[in-house]
Amino acid sequence: MITNVRSDRVKQVKALGRRSARDKAGLFLVEGRQAVRELIRFAPMSIRDVYLDAEATERHPDLRELAGEWADGAPANVRRFVHDCSPQVLAAMCDTEQPQGIIAVARPIDRPLADVLAGSPKFVVICTNVRDPGNAGTVIRGADATGADAVILSDASVDLYNPKLVRSSVGSLWHLPISRGSSIEEIFAACRAAGLTLHAADGVGETLLPDVDLATPHAWVMGNEAWGLEPEVREQCDDVVRVPIYGHAESLNLAMAATVCLYASAAAQN
Amino acid sequence: MITNVRSDRVKQVKALGRRSARDKAGLFLVEGRQAVRELIRFAPMSIRDVYLDAEATERHPDLRELAGEWADGAPANVRRFVHDCSPQVLAAMCDTEQPQGIIAVARPIDRPLADVLAGSPKFVVICTNVRDPGNAGTVIRGADATGADAVILSDASVDLYNPKLVRSSVGSLWHLPISRGSSIEEIFAACRAAGLTLHAADGVGETLLPDVDLATPHAWVMGNEAWGLEPEVREQCDDVVRVPIYGHAESLNLAMAATVCLYASAAAQN
Repeated sequence: MITNVRSDRVKQVKALGRRSARDKAGLFLVEGRQAVRELIRFAPMSIRDVYLDAEATERHPDLRELAGEWADGAPANVRRFVHDCSPQVLAAMCDTEQPQGIIAVARPIDRPLADVLAGSPKFVVICTNVRDPGNAGTVIRGADATGADAVILSDASVDLYNPKLVRSSVGSLWHLPISRGSSIEEIFAACRAAGLTLHAADGVGETLLPDVDLATPHAWVMGNEAWGLEPEVREQCDDVVRVPIYGHAESLNLAMAATVCLYASAAAQN
Repeated sequence: MITNVRSDRVKQVKALGRRSARDKAGLFLVEGRQAVRELIRFAPMSIRDVYLDAEATERHPDLRELAGEWADGAPANVRRFVHDCSPQVLAAMCDTEQPQGIIAVARPIDRPLADVLAGSPKFVVICTNVRDPGNAGTVIRGADATGADAVILSDASVDLYNPKLVRSSVGSLWHLPISRGSSIEEIFAACRAAGLTLHAADGVGETLLPDVDLATPHAWVMGNEAWGLEPEVREQCDDVVRVPIYGHAESLNLAMAATVCLYASAAAQN
Protein backbone atom coordinates (compact mmCIF):
# COMPACT_ATOMS: atom_id res chain seq x y z
CA MET A 1 0.00 0.00 0.00
CA ILE A 2 1.41 3.37 -1.07
CA THR A 3 0.73 5.95 1.62
CA ASN A 4 3.52 8.53 1.36
CA VAL A 5 2.10 11.56 -0.46
CA ARG A 6 5.59 13.07 -0.71
CA SER A 7 7.28 10.18 -2.49
CA ASP A 8 9.06 10.60 -5.81
CA ARG A 9 6.51 8.32 -7.43
CA VAL A 10 3.66 10.62 -6.43
CA LYS A 11 5.57 13.64 -7.73
CA GLN A 12 6.32 11.93 -11.03
CA VAL A 13 2.70 10.98 -11.61
CA LYS A 14 1.47 14.42 -10.56
CA ALA A 15 3.94 16.04 -12.98
CA LEU A 16 2.13 14.37 -15.89
CA GLY A 17 -0.47 17.10 -15.58
CA ARG A 18 2.09 19.26 -17.44
CA ARG A 19 2.72 18.81 -21.14
CA SER A 20 6.51 19.16 -20.84
CA ALA A 21 6.64 16.33 -18.27
CA ARG A 22 4.37 14.15 -20.43
CA ASP A 23 6.53 14.68 -23.52
CA LYS A 24 9.72 13.95 -21.57
CA ALA A 25 8.41 10.81 -19.85
CA GLY A 26 6.42 9.53 -22.84
CA LEU A 27 3.54 8.87 -20.44
CA PHE A 28 0.22 10.40 -19.53
CA LEU A 29 -2.38 10.26 -16.80
CA VAL A 30 -5.78 8.57 -17.11
CA GLU A 31 -8.27 9.41 -14.36
CA GLY A 32 -11.62 7.96 -13.46
CA ARG A 33 -13.44 4.65 -13.65
CA GLN A 34 -14.84 4.74 -17.17
CA ALA A 35 -11.62 6.02 -18.73
CA VAL A 36 -9.46 3.40 -16.97
CA ARG A 37 -11.94 0.63 -17.76
CA GLU A 38 -11.88 1.44 -21.47
CA LEU A 39 -8.11 1.79 -21.40
CA ILE A 40 -7.72 -1.73 -19.97
CA ARG A 41 -10.22 -3.13 -22.47
CA PHE A 42 -9.03 -1.40 -25.62
CA ALA A 43 -5.35 -0.58 -25.12
CA PRO A 44 -3.96 -2.86 -22.38
CA MET A 45 -0.49 -2.91 -23.89
CA SER A 46 -0.18 0.86 -23.48
CA ILE A 47 -0.66 0.85 -19.71
CA ARG A 48 2.27 1.09 -17.31
CA ASP A 49 0.60 1.30 -13.90
CA VAL A 50 -2.84 1.27 -12.33
CA TYR A 51 -3.38 2.93 -8.95
CA LEU A 52 -6.52 2.45 -6.90
CA ASP A 53 -7.76 2.99 -3.39
CA ALA A 54 -9.72 0.74 -1.03
CA GLU A 55 -13.06 2.38 -1.77
CA ALA A 56 -12.77 1.82 -5.52
CA THR A 57 -11.72 -1.77 -4.89
CA GLU A 58 -14.73 -2.35 -2.68
CA ARG A 59 -17.32 -0.47 -4.68
CA HIS A 60 -16.22 -1.61 -8.11
CA PRO A 61 -14.95 -5.19 -7.75
CA ASP A 62 -15.32 -5.63 -11.52
CA LEU A 63 -12.77 -2.89 -12.08
CA ARG A 64 -10.34 -4.45 -9.60
CA GLU A 65 -10.81 -7.76 -11.35
CA LEU A 66 -10.26 -6.21 -14.76
CA ALA A 67 -7.03 -4.60 -13.49
CA GLY A 68 -5.94 -7.97 -12.06
CA GLU A 69 -6.58 -9.70 -15.37
CA TRP A 70 -4.64 -6.99 -17.12
CA ALA A 71 -1.63 -7.53 -14.83
CA ASP A 72 -1.84 -11.33 -15.02
CA GLY A 73 -2.24 -11.26 -18.79
CA ALA A 74 1.14 -9.64 -19.35
CA PRO A 75 3.70 -11.39 -21.54
CA ALA A 76 6.40 -13.24 -19.58
CA ASN A 77 8.99 -10.51 -20.06
CA VAL A 78 6.68 -7.68 -18.94
CA ARG A 79 5.83 -6.82 -15.35
CA ARG A 80 2.63 -4.96 -14.73
CA PHE A 81 1.51 -3.43 -11.49
CA VAL A 82 -1.76 -2.73 -9.77
CA HIS A 83 -0.91 -0.51 -6.81
CA ASP A 84 -3.05 -0.07 -3.75
CA CYS A 85 -2.90 3.50 -2.47
CA SER A 86 -4.43 5.64 0.19
CA PRO A 87 -7.07 8.10 -1.07
CA GLN A 88 -4.64 10.88 -0.11
CA VAL A 89 -1.96 9.51 -2.44
CA LEU A 90 -4.46 9.22 -5.26
CA ALA A 91 -5.62 12.79 -4.70
CA ALA A 92 -2.02 14.00 -4.64
CA MET A 93 -1.29 12.31 -7.98
CA CYS A 94 -4.32 13.68 -9.74
CA ASP A 95 -5.26 16.62 -11.85
CA THR A 96 -8.94 16.38 -10.97
CA GLU A 97 -10.55 16.81 -7.59
CA GLN A 98 -12.63 13.66 -8.03
CA PRO A 99 -10.41 10.86 -9.31
CA GLN A 100 -13.15 8.30 -8.49
CA GLY A 101 -10.60 6.12 -6.70
CA ILE A 102 -8.67 4.94 -9.75
CA ILE A 103 -6.07 6.26 -12.17
CA ALA A 104 -3.62 4.77 -14.65
CA VAL A 105 -0.37 5.87 -16.22
CA ALA A 106 -0.18 4.97 -19.89
CA ARG A 107 1.85 5.42 -23.05
CA PRO A 108 0.62 7.52 -26.01
CA ILE A 109 -1.61 5.74 -28.51
CA ASP A 110 -1.74 8.27 -31.33
CA ARG A 111 -0.89 6.98 -34.78
CA PRO A 112 0.74 8.43 -37.88
CA LEU A 113 -1.51 10.40 -40.20
CA ALA A 114 -1.15 7.87 -43.03
CA ASP A 115 -2.27 5.05 -40.69
CA VAL A 116 -5.49 6.64 -39.54
CA LEU A 117 -6.46 7.40 -43.16
CA ALA A 118 -5.68 3.90 -44.45
CA GLY A 119 -8.54 1.49 -45.15
CA SER A 120 -10.93 3.74 -47.07
CA PRO A 121 -12.45 5.79 -44.25
CA LYS A 122 -16.05 6.92 -44.69
CA PHE A 123 -15.83 9.99 -42.49
CA VAL A 124 -13.26 11.50 -40.17
CA VAL A 125 -12.98 14.62 -38.00
CA ILE A 126 -10.17 17.16 -38.16
CA CYS A 127 -9.69 19.62 -35.28
CA THR A 128 -7.56 22.65 -35.98
CA ASN A 129 -6.80 25.29 -33.36
CA VAL A 130 -9.16 23.66 -30.88
CA ARG A 131 -7.69 24.90 -27.61
CA ASP A 132 -10.08 23.86 -24.88
CA PRO A 133 -9.32 20.31 -23.71
CA GLY A 134 -12.93 19.68 -22.66
CA ASN A 135 -14.17 20.59 -26.14
CA ALA A 136 -11.59 18.42 -27.88
CA GLY A 137 -12.41 15.47 -25.61
CA THR A 138 -16.12 15.90 -26.28
CA VAL A 139 -15.52 16.02 -30.04
CA ILE A 140 -13.59 12.72 -29.76
CA ARG A 141 -16.49 11.25 -27.75
CA GLY A 142 -18.90 12.42 -30.46
CA ALA A 143 -16.71 10.95 -33.20
CA ASP A 144 -16.73 7.65 -31.34
CA ALA A 145 -20.51 7.71 -30.77
CA THR A 146 -21.21 8.35 -34.45
CA GLY A 147 -18.80 5.70 -35.70
CA ALA A 148 -16.33 8.09 -37.32
CA ASP A 149 -13.24 6.33 -38.68
CA ALA A 150 -10.64 8.66 -37.17
CA VAL A 151 -9.92 11.92 -35.38
CA ILE A 152 -7.02 14.12 -36.48
CA LEU A 153 -5.77 16.93 -34.23
CA SER A 154 -3.61 19.47 -36.05
CA ASP A 155 -0.35 20.69 -34.51
CA ALA A 156 -2.07 23.93 -33.46
CA SER A 157 -4.56 22.16 -31.20
CA VAL A 158 -4.57 21.27 -27.50
CA ASP A 159 -2.38 18.32 -26.45
CA LEU A 160 -4.22 15.03 -26.90
CA TYR A 161 -2.93 13.85 -23.51
CA ASN A 162 -4.07 16.84 -21.48
CA PRO A 163 -5.75 15.27 -18.40
CA LYS A 164 -8.95 17.24 -18.93
CA LEU A 165 -9.17 16.10 -22.56
CA VAL A 166 -8.64 12.49 -21.47
CA ARG A 167 -11.37 12.79 -18.82
CA SER A 168 -13.90 14.42 -21.13
CA SER A 169 -13.37 11.77 -23.82
CA VAL A 170 -14.63 9.23 -21.21
CA GLY A 171 -12.65 6.38 -22.79
CA SER A 172 -13.36 7.25 -26.43
CA LEU A 173 -9.64 8.08 -26.77
CA TRP A 174 -9.02 4.32 -27.14
CA HIS A 175 -11.99 3.51 -29.32
CA LEU A 176 -10.91 4.94 -32.65
CA PRO A 177 -7.63 5.85 -34.37
CA ILE A 178 -6.32 9.31 -33.50
CA SER A 179 -3.49 11.24 -35.09
CA ARG A 180 -1.84 14.40 -33.82
CA GLY A 181 0.99 16.76 -34.58
CA SER A 182 0.64 17.20 -38.36
CA SER A 183 0.15 20.64 -39.88
CA ILE A 184 -3.20 21.45 -41.44
CA GLU A 185 -1.53 21.47 -44.90
CA GLU A 186 -0.22 17.92 -44.39
CA ILE A 187 -3.61 16.80 -43.10
CA PHE A 188 -5.53 18.27 -46.03
CA ALA A 189 -3.11 16.74 -48.53
CA ALA A 190 -3.44 13.31 -46.90
CA CYS A 191 -7.24 13.56 -46.82
CA ARG A 192 -7.32 14.53 -50.50
CA ALA A 193 -5.09 11.57 -51.31
CA ALA A 194 -7.50 9.34 -49.36
CA GLY A 195 -10.36 10.60 -51.54
CA LEU A 196 -12.15 12.58 -48.83
CA THR A 197 -14.25 15.66 -49.53
CA LEU A 198 -13.39 18.45 -47.06
CA HIS A 199 -16.38 20.03 -45.30
CA ALA A 200 -15.51 23.03 -43.15
CA ALA A 201 -17.97 23.49 -40.28
CA ASP A 202 -18.43 27.15 -39.45
CA GLY A 203 -21.26 29.49 -38.53
CA VAL A 204 -20.35 31.73 -41.50
CA GLY A 205 -20.96 28.87 -43.97
CA GLU A 206 -23.32 29.35 -46.90
CA THR A 207 -24.22 25.68 -47.25
CA LEU A 208 -26.79 24.36 -44.79
CA LEU A 209 -26.07 21.01 -43.16
CA PRO A 210 -29.20 19.25 -44.51
CA ASP A 211 -28.09 20.16 -48.07
CA VAL A 212 -24.68 18.46 -47.85
CA ASP A 213 -24.04 15.08 -49.50
CA LEU A 214 -22.66 13.02 -46.62
CA ALA A 215 -23.04 9.62 -48.26
CA THR A 216 -19.65 9.96 -49.97
CA PRO A 217 -16.37 9.81 -47.99
CA HIS A 218 -15.59 13.07 -46.23
CA ALA A 219 -13.76 14.90 -43.49
CA TRP A 220 -15.29 17.45 -41.15
CA VAL A 221 -12.98 20.37 -40.38
CA MET A 222 -13.70 21.94 -36.98
CA GLY A 223 -12.00 25.15 -35.85
CA ASN A 224 -11.33 27.17 -32.76
CA GLU A 225 -14.13 27.43 -30.18
CA ALA A 226 -14.06 31.24 -30.14
CA TRP A 227 -13.10 32.41 -33.61
CA GLY A 228 -14.00 29.42 -35.81
CA LEU A 229 -11.91 28.55 -38.85
CA GLU A 230 -9.38 30.94 -40.39
CA PRO A 231 -10.39 32.15 -43.88
CA GLU A 232 -7.33 30.50 -45.47
CA VAL A 233 -8.32 27.15 -43.97
CA ARG A 234 -11.95 27.52 -45.06
CA GLU A 235 -10.87 28.38 -48.59
CA GLN A 236 -9.05 25.09 -48.96
CA CYS A 237 -12.23 23.14 -48.17
CA ASP A 238 -14.84 22.06 -50.70
CA ASP A 239 -17.62 23.86 -48.89
CA VAL A 240 -18.30 25.74 -45.67
CA VAL A 241 -21.25 24.21 -43.87
CA ARG A 242 -23.35 25.75 -41.15
CA VAL A 243 -25.76 24.02 -38.82
CA PRO A 244 -29.12 25.79 -39.25
CA ILE A 245 -30.21 28.02 -36.37
CA TYR A 246 -33.99 28.18 -36.01
CA GLY A 247 -34.25 30.50 -33.01
CA HIS A 248 -32.34 33.58 -31.81
CA ALA A 249 -29.13 31.84 -30.70
CA GLU A 250 -26.10 33.37 -32.37
CA SER A 251 -24.28 30.07 -32.63
CA LEU A 252 -23.72 26.61 -31.22
CA ASN A 253 -20.64 25.76 -29.22
CA LEU A 254 -17.99 23.60 -30.87
CA ALA A 255 -18.98 20.33 -29.22
CA MET A 256 -22.66 20.83 -30.07
CA ALA A 257 -21.93 21.74 -33.70
CA ALA A 258 -19.55 18.80 -34.10
CA THR A 259 -22.08 16.39 -32.60
CA VAL A 260 -24.85 17.55 -34.93
CA CYS A 261 -22.60 17.38 -38.03
CA LEU A 262 -21.29 13.93 -37.10
CA TYR A 263 -24.77 12.54 -36.46
CA ALA A 264 -25.76 13.80 -39.91
CA SER A 265 -22.82 11.83 -41.33
CA ALA A 266 -23.79 8.72 -39.39
CA ALA A 267 -27.41 9.03 -40.56
CA ALA A 268 -26.29 9.32 -44.19
CA GLN A 269 -24.05 6.27 -43.93
CA ASN A 270 -26.13 3.86 -41.84
CA MET B 1 -16.17 55.85 -11.76
CA ILE B 2 -16.47 53.11 -9.14
CA THR B 3 -13.02 52.18 -7.86
CA ASN B 4 -13.49 50.97 -4.27
CA VAL B 5 -13.39 47.17 -4.36
CA ARG B 6 -14.51 47.05 -0.72
CA SER B 7 -17.72 49.04 -1.11
CA ASP B 8 -21.11 47.67 -0.09
CA ARG B 9 -22.21 47.77 -3.71
CA VAL B 10 -19.38 45.47 -4.76
CA LYS B 11 -20.21 43.09 -1.92
CA GLN B 12 -23.90 43.07 -2.82
CA VAL B 13 -23.22 42.26 -6.46
CA LYS B 14 -20.62 39.64 -5.58
CA ALA B 15 -23.10 37.98 -3.19
CA LEU B 16 -25.39 37.24 -6.15
CA GLY B 17 -23.10 34.32 -6.90
CA ARG B 18 -24.96 32.55 -4.05
CA ARG B 19 -28.51 31.29 -4.50
CA SER B 20 -29.69 32.48 -1.09
CA ALA B 21 -28.58 36.04 -1.87
CA ARG B 22 -30.21 35.91 -5.30
CA ASP B 23 -33.51 34.70 -3.86
CA LYS B 24 -33.44 37.36 -1.14
CA ALA B 25 -32.55 40.25 -3.46
CA GLY B 26 -34.70 39.07 -6.37
CA LEU B 27 -31.74 39.81 -8.64
CA PHE B 28 -29.04 37.91 -10.47
CA LEU B 29 -25.72 38.47 -12.16
CA VAL B 30 -25.17 38.48 -15.93
CA GLU B 31 -21.54 38.32 -17.05
CA GLY B 32 -19.89 38.77 -20.41
CA ARG B 33 -20.45 40.66 -23.63
CA GLN B 34 -22.79 38.35 -25.48
CA ALA B 35 -25.00 37.68 -22.46
CA VAL B 36 -25.33 41.39 -21.59
CA ARG B 37 -25.94 42.32 -25.22
CA GLU B 38 -28.79 39.83 -25.53
CA LEU B 39 -30.17 40.91 -22.16
CA ILE B 40 -30.37 44.55 -23.31
CA ARG B 41 -31.93 43.54 -26.62
CA PHE B 42 -34.46 41.00 -25.41
CA ALA B 43 -35.28 41.88 -21.79
CA PRO B 44 -34.34 45.54 -21.21
CA MET B 45 -37.08 46.03 -18.61
CA SER B 46 -35.55 43.37 -16.38
CA ILE B 47 -32.16 45.09 -16.00
CA ARG B 48 -31.29 47.11 -12.93
CA ASP B 49 -27.66 48.08 -13.52
CA VAL B 50 -24.92 47.70 -16.11
CA TYR B 51 -21.27 47.88 -15.03
CA LEU B 52 -18.44 48.20 -17.49
CA ASP B 53 -14.76 49.08 -17.54
CA ALA B 54 -12.76 51.36 -19.83
CA GLU B 55 -11.43 48.55 -21.97
CA ALA B 56 -14.90 47.20 -22.78
CA THR B 57 -16.05 50.75 -23.55
CA GLU B 58 -13.14 51.28 -25.92
CA ARG B 59 -13.10 47.88 -27.58
CA HIS B 60 -16.84 47.47 -27.94
CA PRO B 61 -18.32 50.92 -28.56
CA ASP B 62 -21.49 49.23 -29.89
CA LEU B 63 -22.04 47.68 -26.49
CA ARG B 64 -21.52 50.99 -24.71
CA GLU B 65 -23.95 52.59 -27.13
CA LEU B 66 -26.51 49.84 -26.58
CA ALA B 67 -26.21 50.31 -22.81
CA GLY B 68 -26.63 54.07 -23.27
CA GLU B 69 -29.76 53.56 -25.36
CA TRP B 70 -31.09 51.21 -22.74
CA ALA B 71 -30.59 53.82 -20.00
CA ASP B 72 -32.01 56.67 -22.12
CA GLY B 73 -35.00 54.58 -23.18
CA ALA B 74 -36.30 54.19 -19.64
CA PRO B 75 -39.82 55.35 -18.83
CA ALA B 76 -39.94 58.74 -17.06
CA ASN B 77 -40.47 57.23 -13.62
CA VAL B 78 -37.57 54.76 -13.92
CA ARG B 79 -33.91 55.56 -13.46
CA ARG B 80 -31.39 53.31 -15.11
CA PHE B 81 -27.66 53.35 -14.60
CA VAL B 82 -24.63 52.51 -16.66
CA HIS B 83 -21.72 52.52 -14.22
CA ASP B 84 -18.09 52.96 -15.17
CA CYS B 85 -15.83 50.83 -12.99
CA SER B 86 -12.20 49.93 -12.67
CA PRO B 87 -11.32 46.45 -13.94
CA GLN B 88 -10.54 45.56 -10.30
CA VAL B 89 -14.09 46.41 -9.22
CA LEU B 90 -15.53 44.37 -12.05
CA ALA B 91 -13.34 41.41 -11.14
CA ALA B 92 -14.35 41.72 -7.48
CA MET B 93 -18.04 41.65 -8.41
CA CYS B 94 -17.79 38.61 -10.63
CA ASP B 95 -18.14 34.90 -10.39
CA THR B 96 -15.97 34.28 -13.42
CA GLU B 97 -12.30 35.08 -13.85
CA GLN B 98 -12.91 36.63 -17.29
CA PRO B 99 -15.91 38.98 -17.07
CA GLN B 100 -14.97 40.48 -20.49
CA GLY B 101 -15.28 43.97 -19.07
CA ILE B 102 -19.06 44.04 -18.67
CA ILE B 103 -21.70 42.70 -16.30
CA ALA B 104 -25.33 43.49 -15.51
CA VAL B 105 -27.61 42.96 -12.54
CA ALA B 106 -31.09 41.89 -13.59
CA ARG B 107 -34.42 40.64 -12.30
CA PRO B 108 -35.67 37.09 -12.91
CA ILE B 109 -37.46 36.47 -16.21
CA ASP B 110 -38.90 33.00 -15.63
CA ARG B 111 -42.61 32.59 -16.28
CA PRO B 112 -45.40 30.46 -14.82
CA LEU B 113 -45.71 26.95 -16.23
CA ALA B 114 -49.11 27.68 -17.75
CA ASP B 115 -47.69 30.69 -19.62
CA VAL B 116 -44.82 28.88 -21.31
CA LEU B 117 -47.20 26.14 -22.49
CA ALA B 118 -49.82 28.54 -23.84
CA GLY B 119 -50.08 29.13 -27.60
CA SER B 120 -49.93 25.54 -28.88
CA PRO B 121 -46.20 24.78 -28.54
CA LYS B 122 -44.69 22.40 -31.10
CA PHE B 123 -41.87 21.15 -28.95
CA VAL B 124 -40.45 22.02 -25.56
CA VAL B 125 -37.65 20.73 -23.31
CA ILE B 126 -38.07 19.61 -19.71
CA CYS B 127 -34.97 19.27 -17.50
CA THR B 128 -35.39 17.26 -14.33
CA ASN B 129 -32.58 16.74 -11.82
CA VAL B 130 -30.08 18.45 -14.11
CA ARG B 131 -27.53 19.61 -11.58
CA ASP B 132 -24.59 20.97 -13.54
CA PRO B 133 -25.16 24.64 -14.44
CA GLY B 134 -22.99 24.38 -17.57
CA ASN B 135 -25.09 21.50 -18.88
CA ALA B 136 -28.38 23.27 -18.14
CA GLY B 137 -27.16 26.45 -19.85
CA THR B 138 -26.04 24.49 -22.90
CA VAL B 139 -29.42 22.73 -23.10
CA ILE B 140 -31.11 26.14 -23.07
CA ARG B 141 -28.75 27.31 -25.81
CA GLY B 142 -29.62 24.18 -27.82
CA ALA B 143 -33.35 24.74 -27.29
CA ASP B 144 -32.94 28.29 -28.57
CA ALA B 145 -30.87 27.21 -31.60
CA THR B 146 -33.45 24.63 -32.63
CA GLY B 147 -36.43 26.94 -32.19
CA ALA B 148 -37.97 25.08 -29.25
CA ASP B 149 -41.00 26.87 -27.81
CA ALA B 150 -39.99 26.69 -24.14
CA VAL B 151 -37.65 25.24 -21.54
CA ILE B 152 -39.00 23.96 -18.24
CA LEU B 153 -36.65 23.29 -15.31
CA SER B 154 -38.19 21.11 -12.60
CA ASP B 155 -37.82 22.04 -8.93
CA ALA B 156 -35.09 19.41 -8.54
CA SER B 157 -32.78 21.09 -11.05
CA VAL B 158 -29.98 23.62 -10.74
CA ASP B 159 -31.01 27.26 -10.14
CA LEU B 160 -31.79 29.00 -13.42
CA TYR B 161 -29.89 32.08 -12.23
CA ASN B 162 -26.66 30.34 -11.28
CA PRO B 163 -23.92 32.52 -12.84
CA LYS B 164 -22.35 29.58 -14.66
CA LEU B 165 -25.71 28.62 -16.17
CA VAL B 166 -26.27 32.21 -17.30
CA ARG B 167 -22.81 32.33 -18.91
CA SER B 168 -23.14 29.00 -20.69
CA SER B 169 -26.55 29.95 -22.13
CA VAL B 170 -24.72 32.85 -23.92
CA GLY B 171 -27.85 34.98 -24.01
CA SER B 172 -30.33 32.23 -24.90
CA LEU B 173 -31.86 32.69 -21.45
CA TRP B 174 -33.73 35.70 -22.88
CA HIS B 175 -34.64 34.23 -26.23
CA LEU B 176 -37.39 31.80 -25.29
CA PRO B 177 -39.87 31.37 -22.43
CA ILE B 178 -38.46 29.51 -19.42
CA SER B 179 -40.30 28.16 -16.40
CA ARG B 180 -38.80 26.86 -13.18
CA GLY B 181 -39.79 25.57 -9.77
CA SER B 182 -42.68 23.23 -10.63
CA SER B 183 -42.56 19.57 -9.66
CA ILE B 184 -42.20 16.99 -12.38
CA GLU B 185 -45.79 15.84 -11.68
CA GLU B 186 -47.14 19.35 -12.25
CA ILE B 187 -45.03 19.70 -15.39
CA PHE B 188 -46.19 16.40 -16.89
CA ALA B 189 -49.84 17.20 -16.12
CA ALA B 190 -49.53 20.62 -17.77
CA CYS B 191 -47.80 19.14 -20.83
CA ARG B 192 -50.52 16.52 -21.18
CA ALA B 193 -53.17 19.23 -20.94
CA ALA B 194 -51.32 21.14 -23.68
CA GLY B 195 -51.52 18.06 -25.92
CA LEU B 196 -47.81 17.21 -25.86
CA THR B 197 -46.46 13.70 -26.24
CA LEU B 198 -43.75 13.02 -23.61
CA HIS B 199 -40.50 11.61 -24.99
CA ALA B 200 -38.01 10.61 -22.31
CA ALA B 201 -34.41 10.81 -23.56
CA ASP B 202 -32.25 8.16 -21.95
CA GLY B 203 -29.49 5.78 -22.98
CA VAL B 204 -31.57 2.84 -21.70
CA GLY B 205 -34.39 3.64 -24.13
CA GLU B 206 -35.72 1.00 -26.49
CA THR B 207 -36.95 3.42 -29.16
CA LEU B 208 -34.27 4.79 -31.48
CA LEU B 209 -34.36 8.52 -32.21
CA PRO B 210 -34.83 8.15 -36.00
CA ASP B 211 -37.96 6.04 -35.34
CA VAL B 212 -39.77 8.68 -33.28
CA ASP B 213 -42.60 10.78 -34.76
CA LEU B 214 -41.47 14.31 -34.04
CA ALA B 215 -43.89 16.06 -36.40
CA THR B 216 -46.60 16.12 -33.72
CA PRO B 217 -46.33 18.38 -30.63
CA HIS B 218 -44.04 16.92 -27.98
CA ALA B 219 -41.85 17.50 -24.95
CA TRP B 220 -38.34 16.10 -24.48
CA VAL B 221 -37.64 14.98 -20.93
CA MET B 222 -33.94 15.17 -20.06
CA GLY B 223 -32.57 13.76 -16.79
CA ASN B 224 -29.53 13.95 -14.57
CA GLU B 225 -26.11 14.07 -16.27
CA ALA B 226 -24.78 11.10 -14.29
CA TRP B 227 -27.69 8.77 -13.62
CA GLY B 228 -30.21 9.72 -16.34
CA LEU B 229 -33.95 9.62 -15.63
CA GLU B 230 -35.44 7.83 -12.66
CA PRO B 231 -37.55 4.78 -13.60
CA GLU B 232 -40.73 6.36 -12.18
CA VAL B 233 -40.21 9.42 -14.38
CA ARG B 234 -39.50 7.31 -17.48
CA GLU B 235 -42.62 5.26 -16.87
CA GLN B 236 -44.83 8.32 -17.04
CA CYS B 237 -43.55 9.15 -20.52
CA ASP B 238 -44.97 7.81 -23.78
CA ASP B 239 -41.68 6.33 -24.85
CA VAL B 240 -38.03 6.22 -23.82
CA VAL B 241 -35.83 7.30 -26.70
CA ARG B 242 -32.14 6.71 -27.13
CA VAL B 243 -29.79 8.40 -29.55
CA PRO B 244 -28.16 5.62 -31.59
CA ILE B 245 -24.50 4.90 -30.80
CA TYR B 246 -22.60 3.64 -33.83
CA GLY B 247 -19.16 3.20 -32.26
CA HIS B 248 -17.86 2.02 -28.88
CA ALA B 249 -18.85 5.08 -26.82
CA GLU B 250 -20.98 4.08 -23.85
CA SER B 251 -23.10 7.21 -24.02
CA LEU B 252 -23.35 10.85 -24.97
CA ASN B 253 -23.22 13.59 -22.39
CA LEU B 254 -26.45 15.41 -21.57
CA ALA B 255 -25.79 18.49 -23.70
CA MET B 256 -24.82 16.40 -26.74
CA ALA B 257 -27.85 14.11 -26.40
CA ALA B 258 -30.20 17.07 -25.95
CA THR B 259 -28.74 18.86 -28.97
CA VAL B 260 -29.15 15.81 -31.22
CA CYS B 261 -32.74 15.18 -30.04
CA LEU B 262 -33.69 18.83 -30.46
CA TYR B 263 -32.22 19.03 -33.96
CA ALA B 264 -34.26 15.98 -34.87
CA SER B 265 -37.36 17.84 -33.66
CA ALA B 266 -36.41 20.94 -35.64
CA ALA B 267 -35.80 18.86 -38.78
CA ALA B 268 -39.22 17.20 -38.42
CA GLN B 269 -40.98 20.52 -37.99
CA ASN B 270 -39.20 22.74 -40.52
